[in-house]
Amino acid sequence: MDLGGTAVALDGFGVEAGFDVLAAGVRLAAADGIRLRVFGPSSEIDLDGVEGVELIDTTDQVSNEDDPVAAVRGRPESSIVRAVADVAAGNSEAVVSCGSTGATLAASLFGLKRSRGVKRPALAAQVPLPGRTVVFLDVGANVDVRAQHLIQFAWLGAAFSKSVLGVRRPEVGLLSVGEEAGKGRAEVVEAHEALTRAKEFDFIGNVEGRDVPAAVADVVVTDGFTGNVVLKAMEGTVKTVVGAISDAARRNPLSAAGGLMLKPALGGLKRELHPDTTGGAILLGLRKTAVVGHGSSGAEGVANAVRVAARSARVDVPGLTEELLHRVGANRGSIESGGDV
Amino acid sequence: MDLGGTAVALDGFGVEAGFDVLAAGVRLAAADGIRLRVFGPSSEIDLDGVEGVELIDTTDQVSNEDDPVAAVRGRPESSIVRAVADVAAGNSEAVVSCGSTGATLAASLFGLKRSRGVKRPALAAQVPLPGRTVVFLDVGANVDVRAQHLIQFAWLGAAFSKSVLGVRRPEVGLLSVGEEAGKGRAEVVEAHEALTRAKEFDFIGNVEGRDVPAAVADVVVTDGFTGNVVLKAMEGTVKTVVGAISDAARRNPLSAAGGLMLKPALGGLKRELHPDTTGGAILLGLRKTAVVGHGSSGAEGVANAVRVAARSARVDVPGLTEELLHRVGANRGSIESGGDV
Repeated sequence: MDLGGTAVALDGFGVEAGFDVLAAGVRLAAADGIRLRVFGPSSEIDLDGVEGVELIDTTDQVSNEDDPVAAVRGRPESSIVRAVADVAAGNSEAVVSCGSTGATLAASLFGLKRSRGVKRPALAAQVPLPGRTVVFLDVGANVDVRAQHLIQFAWLGAAFSKSVLGVRRPEVGLLSVGEEAGKGRAEVVEAHEALTRAKEFDFIGNVEGRDVPAAVADVVVTDGFTGNVVLKAMEGTVKTVVGAISDAARRNPLSAAGGLMLKPALGGLKRELHPDTTGGAILLGLRKTAVVGHGSSGAEGVANAVRVAARSARVDVPGLTEELLHRVGANRGSIESGGDV
Repeated sequence: MDLGGTAVALDGFGVEAGFDVLAAGVRLAAADGIRLRVFGPSSEIDLDGVEGVELIDTTDQVSNEDDPVAAVRGRPESSIVRAVADVAAGNSEAVVSCGSTGATLAASLFGLKRSRGVKRPALAAQVPLPGRTVVFLDVGANVDVRAQHLIQFAWLGAAFSKSVLGVRRPEVGLLSVGEEAGKGRAEVVEAHEALTRAKEFDFIGNVEGRDVPAAVADVVVTDGFTGNVVLKAMEGTVKTVVGAISDAARRNPLSAAGGLMLKPALGGLKRELHPDTTGGAILLGLRKTAVVGHGSSGAEGVANAVRVAARSARVDVPGLTEELLHRVGANRGSIESGGDV
């Protein structure tokens, strides 16, 4: 996809590896023709002469230690609030931050409007797995949910899978403790029942924890507490297994030789499974695109987060999501369980 | 530990690989001197002449398709109900089943008394990780919890870690979406606050999803929905990564040779991380021991589930748990949050 000319507002703080890594990521994304507006300290970030990149000097950073809501409300000059405001003002089409997830969520929820009909925007991760990329949501925006939120997450995820990943008819699974329709918490059971009537995607029913890494669905839906913990547990498990293999390989010379010969293949795998590859999580359900990159991103991770944001803006994920939700509005009564939100 | 003479009641149904694998597992456990009372079909299970093993002919099986509570209540002649009743009657000291988890939980909760002071028994998995075995609970007994349940799970897990795994002063973590005390659902925040006052173990605060496979704590506490999903997601991730490595190794001759040379080391790792190794999950908070083995267990998995049950009965985990809960009874007010259950 040609991303040329798409404008992305980038929070210049939050990349743990430092401003030089951030700048390297910006250069990579700019080389794709993406226009970037970077909100960070001009004394630290060297982007002189990079075509299509504008650095807007910003020195206030909302950190992980700050209370996100209070910080976002009280510090309009902070980099994340300014980057979001840049999108709201129409100067950029999407916002990206590798800083505090909470602050990015809060700033985006406050600063960018929700799509029509969306009750609760959700944070979606693209999990790169052998076979397909799984859209996994919510991974942290809503620690408590009701059935109608889970139901909407299914639509949000399906819309993303269709529009950005090009899956014609996404398979959608609902995460629970068993495959049977009656398994799990009350809100999961209720959501399951409603989702069986969905016509816009294939609802494959409940999926279990092991089904997420097995990539049995294009979209897996859960609440933001479970999703956050599961996503991080999977990332951590990859790290543990790869570490254990390295240790095992070091234990004796024959294994060590084997490990050496496997290295290129392992490198490819590590790249494939590395969070950098997908460029972070995307906040779905807003009228504009917001992407939460990893604080631990390398240059490639920063660039990929920007690319995801640009791609989402270019294919108009927010517009397509709204259209899909509008189309199902006819049978809204059937997809939303009773009760208010 | 000498397990000689400890009597374990074993559900003879539920091992997916069939009765011969079950019988092979029984022989392995019996070779350790454990006495077994097996409740299964005598026409299918061949245990003739195995010393210390009694086969009690039982033909009714509660399957995964049955509603656990209704089945357990209505079918006293089913293998799981008879095995539990055998423990309740004092013929055996612990019960093991590789069949329906729901049925084993229901039968045990109905048939074995809760330890004094325990509100909700929890299912604990021993997760074998490089460095240490992590006790992870609840992995499926309680999909909804309140703060006081999470608090008790910490005590149950710590008691198990001390008595069975020999950890003098267990480090206990509370699973949440961030390290800060205020992160997560209301019941998690409330439990965190109460646990900071625990004196019987080291409460290390909130841990995140990635900290579970990183083995940062001896005990990790969560609700039964999150725990079930996370445990299965980690198991699935190991499978995916090992599969991807095998694929990568097959891709070219040099890698293939490397893979071959790594095979013994990988085999060791797979054994280390395989669910069979720990023999399933244990139900904590009852006056007798109940162990839920994997339906996918091999003979070694069956034997290990029986060994865990025998060891737990031998060191009297239920008694030690009760003692620990009793000891903290003095400051009960401080460890239990207000409100009833």
